[in-house]
Amino acid sequence: MSERAYIKETAESYLDKLASGDPEPGGGSAAALAGALGAALVSMVTNLTLGKEKYAAVQTDMEQIKAASEALRLRLADLVSLDADAYAEVAAAMKLPRDTDEQKKQRQVVLQAALKGAADAPGRVADAALEVARLSLTAAEKGNPNAVSDAGVAVLFAEAAAQAAALNVKINLAWIDDAEFKRQIWAKIEAVLSESMRLRDAVLSITYSKI
Amino acid sequence: MSERAYIKETAESYLDKLASGDPEPGGGSAAALAGALGAALVSMVTNLTLGKEKYAAVQTDMEQIKAASEALRLRLADLVSLDADAYAEVAAAMKLPRDTDEQKKQRQVVLQAALKGAADAPGRVADAALEVARLSLTAAEKGNPNAVSDAGVAVLFAEAAAQAAALNVKINLAWIDDAEFKRQIWAKIEAVLSESMRLRDAVLSITYSKI
Repeated sequence: MSERAYIKETAESYLDKLASGDPEPGGGSAAALAGALGAALVSMVTNLTLGKEKYAAVQTDMEQIKAASEALRLRLADLVSLDADAYAEVAAAMKLPRDTDEQKKQRQVVLQAALKGAADAPGRVADAALEVARLSLTAAEKGNPNAVSDAGVAVLFAEAAAQAAALNVKINLAWIDDAEFKRQIWAKIEAVLSESMRLRDAVLSITYSKI
Repeated sequence: MSERAYIKETAESYLDKLASGDPEPGGGSAAALAGALGAALVSMVTNLTLGKEKYAAVQTDMEQIKAASEALRLRLADLVSLDADAYAEVAAAMKLPRDTDEQKKQRQVVLQAALKGAADAPGRVADAALEVARLSLTAAEKGNPNAVSDAGVAVLFAEAAAQAAALNVKINLAWIDDAEFKRQIWAKIEAVLSESMRLRDAVLSITYSKI
């Protein structure tokens, strides 16, 4: 758990901090919040489907989706602050002294580790956002059709969160020396973006066909 | 000003309410919040550019963008609750008595007016989100390049907010009798979606070229 806990502040206060020129919260943190909004909307669809006789055939599906979307919502809500924590580590490493060769070497080791952490946090946002997008597909296909627009909004936020997280992975990769780490994390991100865009198209198509 | 004022609650409380099966807040309200996050990120880019000698040539541009993005942030933050208010009017109209022909007629008049309001609120979210997307383009082109990823995240949220708002316009239009109202509002929405998608591509292209 982060000490920041932005999620415990008012939405207005979070927006104020985001709009300011302070180093955190930044785009990666906001990406996590957009993903959490998407997860909440998937949960809403399940809550409008569960316990209704008309949708008896999909009750087990909805229970499974709800358990998954609520877990993702918590994970993404944590990442709203954890992404900012990871960025703060980079800012702290940058301020380490570099007067001697030994200090320079030490600073570089700490900075590289911090940068990997700062690329990893939005990477986890992207992974969780893709999971939300996958859940939104089943929610749109099998959930209460009166709530299908909420499944559509969920996939829009999930895809935007994945894309936003990717940008924040990319800016950190630029300063990382470890070529193999960079190659692996970016290949994974490209796969996430490709699948989340496919899901956006699929879920929006279903949504428009039902409203 | 709405009595709801979701923006004054914690982000966690808003997410809880969104995830629940309660009628509000719904996808239109969440769309307004995503748009407000985008506006805040545009403001962040201006705040990281203003007052820096290196970017002296764009200070006037940044001041203008900041004034516009802060106004849009406030408007969208209001719409987080106003969209829910408009939806609540529809729910209230649905509950009006319909025992006599006179009551049925009266209920229909009130309901049709409420539905127009419920289509108009996300329509205003879409308009404001498009403005945010436009500002993000100038922010990406002229703002501090170290903050360009935040302009990229801004356009992603703005486009998702416009698309999400469009879905919420559409579900209300389905129940509206006034064909001319429906035609006009949907033609406007289609123009907003087309331009916001074009802006998303343009701003992401600039962003990736700079990071």
